[in-house]
Amino acid sequence: MPETNYAVGIDLGGTSIKAGIADKKGKIIEKLSLPTNAGQGPEAVVNQIKKAIHRLLKKNNKKIAGIGIGSPGIVKLKKGTVENPPNFPGWSKVPLGTILTKEFNLNVFVENDANAAAIGELAYGSGKNLDNFLMVTLGTGVGGSIIINKKIYRGESGAAGEIGHVSIDHNGPKCNCGSYGCIEAYAGNNYLIQNVSRDLNNHIDSLLYHFVNVDNKTLTPKLIHQAALENDAYSKSIIIELGKNIGFALTSIINLLDITNVIIGGGVAGFGELLFDSIERGIKERVLIPLKDRIDVKPAKLKNEAGIKGASALVFYSN
Amino acid sequence: MPETNYAVGIDLGGTSIKAGIADKKGKIIEKLSLPTNAGQGPEAVVNQIKKAIHRLLKKNNKKIAGIGIGSPGIVKLKKGTVENPPNFPGWSKVPLGTILTKEFNLNVFVENDANAAAIGELAYGSGKNLDNFLMVTLGTGVGGSIIINKKIYRGESGAAGEIGHVSIDHNGPKCNCGSYGCIEAYAGNNYLIQNVSRDLNNHIDSLLYHFVNVDNKTLTPKLIHQAALENDAYSKSIIIELGKNIGFALTSIINLLDITNVIIGGGVAGFGELLFDSIERGIKERVLIPLKDRIDVKPAKLKNEAGIKGASALVFYSN
Repeated sequence: MPETNYAVGIDLGGTSIKAGIADKKGKIIEKLSLPTNAGQGPEAVVNQIKKAIHRLLKKNNKKIAGIGIGSPGIVKLKKGTVENPPNFPGWSKVPLGTILTKEFNLNVFVENDANAAAIGELAYGSGKNLDNFLMVTLGTGVGGSIIINKKIYRGESGAAGEIGHVSIDHNGPKCNCGSYGCIEAYAGNNYLIQNVSRDLNNHIDSLLYHFVNVDNKTLTPKLIHQAALENDAYSKSIIIELGKNIGFALTSIINLLDITNVIIGGGVAGFGELLFDSIERGIKERVLIPLKDRIDVKPAKLKNEAGIKGASALVFYSN
Repeated sequence: MPETNYAVGIDLGGTSIKAGIADKKGKIIEKLSLPTNAGQGPEAVVNQIKKAIHRLLKKNNKKIAGIGIGSPGIVKLKKGTVENPPNFPGWSKVPLGTILTKEFNLNVFVENDANAAAIGELAYGSGKNLDNFLMVTLGTGVGGSIIINKKIYRGESGAAGEIGHVSIDHNGPKCNCGSYGCIEAYAGNNYLIQNVSRDLNNHIDSLLYHFVNVDNKTLTPKLIHQAALENDAYSKSIIIELGKNIGFALTSIINLLDITNVIIGGGVAGFGELLFDSIERGIKERVLIPLKDRIDVKPAKLKNEAGIKGASALVFYSN
């Protein structure tokens, strides 16, 4: 049945819903974006998701194998229930899977967005030839997923994979989760920008300081990257330090799990080689000796449309 | 075949080899102990193991289902090869499984000692009713094992489960493994004793200080426990602090794996309720909220003969 080799992929974000139809090889043949309207509560969000899918299906003449959704929060697989996604006010538990199955009479696969990203890399990206890997997504938060034998490892309740909440210092900075020193409290975008903002006045001769003050630009990861590319020592040191910290967290995880391949995606992964080298070097300096030679840290292959591709891949490749 | 419900269990330690015959319920019907002679090199050790088994089998009239061995170091399952066990000079790789299969013409199951302890708890102890748990063994080092769906999780190369080398502080004390702040560098017996020894002079009015000086006793975990039982505030604070640190490491692991049951064995686990309460409280204060209510930390049930029981259980219960 070659005509069922297509799936809908929905990337549910805090500000926008990215939706597309992709084939079994991850090629997107149709896509659109709608505002999430998260501030209007769960019903409004569900309506936007439905609207996005209806619009896609209207234009479409392929037979659709199912709908895949990558969502923030904890996802309970049975009913595709999404629990407490951060930045979705008023949302406690919504059985998104059940709702959409009824609406569209199609198989619906709801998955945590970090797991969806990992399935995308497994199916079409840097994880294609790997049986086991750790996936880290650097964004507002630090998402994580553990792939064992080409399947998502879910844990007892579907909450496994929280790489972002592995702590590297029990006396470290307070994390939003309530704990201390979680790698998210160093590498999450907001934390990173906060930390650098606080430190920037100690580096008034840096290019980054200059960048931020010219035209009163606010500090962003992009600016740090730009300054580093122009060889600003301070900006480079920020990226190297970030990599080291991520490496510390990964060292603990690799020692624990004996999984030595790491794929890193998300915006800050755009820091490029400087970041990746620093992460890999950090791990190799500290990881248990028998594991050292197998360590491999690489960037995610799926970039802009990773969310849609990962979500549509759930229909074909998730366990 | 009720007559094959017996197995040989070998607990290979740095100083002694404990050997026994146990039934499928973990009841030991015969046992003995021989010096390991680790200082004389791998051949001598292998000879001692053979001698122990020969002696056991000589006295025995039951039909034996196989031989299980719990060994320090990394164990490669295929040939039961034991690699670089700490405190075994001159030992790089020894195919213990192959050697003993030839010698005794029986099925031989070689497993890392922490994993053997976990299988013991799974078969006969505190893990009997659990599908998933973390096993921590507090000894000279801090051993670990991860049980998922009633099986040992081994990772890519059989090295998984190194809970002892999860770091709680990237600037923490140097660990023997080369990394920093590993929980072993706080909770391993030698480290614990070192740290307390260094601190003891600041607590000359403590009962522990008094204990250590009377009769020139050296500091041991047992003395700390004894003083704590007699309500020595300083000794109690050592145990509570130790529990907190173990709790920090476990928090990261539980967040990562969504496995919420923890079994703690080994000598220092004898610190009792004070330790267990501190570990559990530490985890509950920091772990991700959706996991909190399921957290359960309990002592291992198998005590003195845990090594033999765990090893013999490998024959019947390991995957």
